[in-house]
Amino acid sequence: MSERRVLIVGGGFAGLNVAKALSNRAGVSVTLIDRQNHHLFQPLLYQVAMAALSPADIAAPIRSILSRSRNVRVLQAEARSVDLKSRAVLTDAGTFGYDALVLACGATHAYFGHEEWEPHAPGLKSLPQATEIRRRVLSAFETAERIQDAGEQERWLTFAIIGGGPTGVELAGAIAEMGRHTLARDFRNVDPRRTRVLLLEAGPRILPAFQEKQAQRATRDLQGMGVQVRVDARVTKVSADGVDIGAEHVRAATVLWAAGVRAAPIARSLGVELDNAGRVLVEADLSVPGYPQVFVAGDLARALDIETGKPLPGVATVAQQQGKYVGKLLRDDPSVRQPFRYKNEGQLATIGRSHAIAELKHFNFAGRPAWWLWLLVHIYGLTGFRNRLTVLVQWAWSYFTFGRGARLIVPPEWREYPAPETPSERTTR
Amino acid sequence: MSERRVLIVGGGFAGLNVAKALSNRAGVSVTLIDRQNHHLFQPLLYQVAMAALSPADIAAPIRSILSRSRNVRVLQAEARSVDLKSRAVLTDAGTFGYDALVLACGATHAYFGHEEWEPHAPGLKSLPQATEIRRRVLSAFETAERIQDAGEQERWLTFAIIGGGPTGVELAGAIAEMGRHTLARDFRNVDPRRTRVLLLEAGPRILPAFQEKQAQRATRDLQGMGVQVRVDARVTKVSADGVDIGAEHVRAATVLWAAGVRAAPIARSLGVELDNAGRVLVEADLSVPGYPQVFVAGDLARALDIETGKPLPGVATVAQQQGKYVGKLLRDDPSVRQPFRYKNEGQLATIGRSHAIAELKHFNFAGRPAWWLWLLVHIYGLTGFRNRLTVLVQWAWSYFTFGRGARLIVPPEWREYPAPETPSERTTR
Repeated sequence: MSERRVLIVGGGFAGLNVAKALSNRAGVSVTLIDRQNHHLFQPLLYQVAMAALSPADIAAPIRSILSRSRNVRVLQAEARSVDLKSRAVLTDAGTFGYDALVLACGATHAYFGHEEWEPHAPGLKSLPQATEIRRRVLSAFETAERIQDAGEQERWLTFAIIGGGPTGVELAGAIAEMGRHTLARDFRNVDPRRTRVLLLEAGPRILPAFQEKQAQRATRDLQGMGVQVRVDARVTKVSADGVDIGAEHVRAATVLWAAGVRAAPIARSLGVELDNAGRVLVEADLSVPGYPQVFVAGDLARALDIETGKPLPGVATVAQQQGKYVGKLLRDDPSVRQPFRYKNEGQLATIGRSHAIAELKHFNFAGRPAWWLWLLVHIYGLTGFRNRLTVLVQWAWSYFTFGRGARLIVPPEWREYPAPETPSERTTR
Repeated sequence: MSERRVLIVGGGFAGLNVAKALSNRAGVSVTLIDRQNHHLFQPLLYQVAMAALSPADIAAPIRSILSRSRNVRVLQAEARSVDLKSRAVLTDAGTFGYDALVLACGATHAYFGHEEWEPHAPGLKSLPQATEIRRRVLSAFETAERIQDAGEQERWLTFAIIGGGPTGVELAGAIAEMGRHTLARDFRNVDPRRTRVLLLEAGPRILPAFQEKQAQRATRDLQGMGVQVRVDARVTKVSADGVDIGAEHVRAATVLWAAGVRAAPIARSLGVELDNAGRVLVEADLSVPGYPQVFVAGDLARALDIETGKPLPGVATVAQQQGKYVGKLLRDDPSVRQPFRYKNEGQLATIGRSHAIAELKHFNFAGRPAWWLWLLVHIYGLTGFRNRLTVLVQWAWSYFTFGRGARLIVPPEWREYPAPETPSERTTR
């Protein structure tokens, strides 16, 4: 009997856990493709954008994570579409056949039909986006220092963050801290403590996934740090000058987008039912209806919580648990499949230095204890010993000095050079 | 009496040391402009290119280094030309007048009239160049893994480094190590141990600045690591397919340039005598002939060693000492200026794990002791406590695991977005 070919598309939390569950399993040959060479620890991506960590601190090469899984092959390639009928995935490096397929390509940010806003309000989903946001935020202070016009200085010191979910809250808190502490003494012409941060949420309150009381606490913490939290503030226009909230225009040189996500476009090629956000409506076992050997996991899947009947949130723990679940299904190939059951350990959101909120199964808390818990959980979650240790060192340094270790403005000046041509000649094997 | 305005162009080793020497000096107001926001620890730049360190590990914001120097203003701006007659420097952020000027803009790599080679053979002078080299080297292995044609695989696993100075030696050693150790077990389709590294030097031996015996030792060490060292190998063509050495064509998908530098083009605007490499021929006190209040320091200056009469090399210690010297001159304003005297503490070159060569004043040595000295000197030299500690952690991790912590291929995908407009309205004050 020949080996069973499992194809995994995406090396995020979901895909990586599928591969790990199948590691060195006899009779199974696994191919994992990802357009990046690295797995990214998404929950800390905002720290790269906020100059606290370096890209390499939160990323590790997928092939090095799986180097001891001798039956797993990792290829850097971009999946373009899936042909369910002929059991093949088309990529920029050729076509890959499969016996079982796991799609775990994640999501990107969405502008709800206003794609023209993207150049003015970058979102935060990838490392290049994170370093671009870092460049913009740090450059805004540099520009304010360089110019003399008071009105323009104010515009360069105004930061608008659109979207009051965990990412928006993290970004708003971090920029406020930067102005108040990190940069406070480094400028001569402007005072970074004049930094104005607006957190704009279209809904009636920030952090809608959390309980009302916790969201109120987060709002108070943000306000204490100088952030203007505005709810029911629906943004109607984003331009180079700033944002419009209905009839009101706010001048802000830096606008960041943390308002919405959309599943990777490859889902559309399946030809099956998707939800509003482009996610695949999966069965209880995370398979695609009618295709028991095709699974969708992570942010690309719209799976329902088996207990509450509500859609599962797009967070790392859901993706991890789904990956493990699918990996076990493929490994054991049971005749009767138990449905996927999300084990909710609670949720955390960090606001800034010593401020966070935590909702665990049986009790909630906030402030410094929640912040320490957040630190612990994220250090523990980081892949690889070295990243964990360097991140600890950097956090300890930041905590005691209020400094940020990665205050680099790196221009994307390599534009002028063409990327070396990378041939693609693989076909279905 | 009004304050004396000192203008420093460039925040490298030379410029930074001028500013430090003038820190909080009464009666002196200092403006330091640099087109980057960060000071770069150049001697470790190759480690960023070789995926061992992150950009932020070897860089620190200039304004944070000088944050306690209340009389120093730091501005991110690019100097375009100098008008010696009207005592002004033209930048992209307006014109700056001065009473005394220090030009310390460094050097960039030069292709000796073959600028068309640059896209195929990037040099290593800035952080974007380092991350581009990292991307190319790591991507070459990824591509070899993805394709099936044996000849093409060989081409993707061949790396040619042009130039046998310290940078070329460091790059060659690091790529050989990567293939032999770091990546050895991570691929399935190719064996990275088949990696072929060529170090091409046009002259009769590598490391011409070192003594013959030390260069021989370095050659043996490189050969022991699998590097093919070729001297008297003058490259006559660089293309996407590889390099030509006279009539011989070597197929190599990745070519790196470590063969020559040229002073920053701003030197030409001075209208004074330059040497072949575009450097300013300075007086014994590093001033520009005829302009005792205009100094040139670091790689932009061609200064002669007062003892040997030979030009000083373009290394960090020369730039540092020159910066300190100019800073003291400007601070004390002596009626008689003592000439600049370079205090040569010796030189070091590292070849790879546990291999280095050292030439100190009275004796030379090589191997592991030289390598430990190299580590010590570079850790000590890093600016800022945090960088020093994280670099130590990463080096320790690499030493014991043969791993590289920054194996990230980050695409320059942010190309699509325009940089935010940064106004410039400053004029001579």
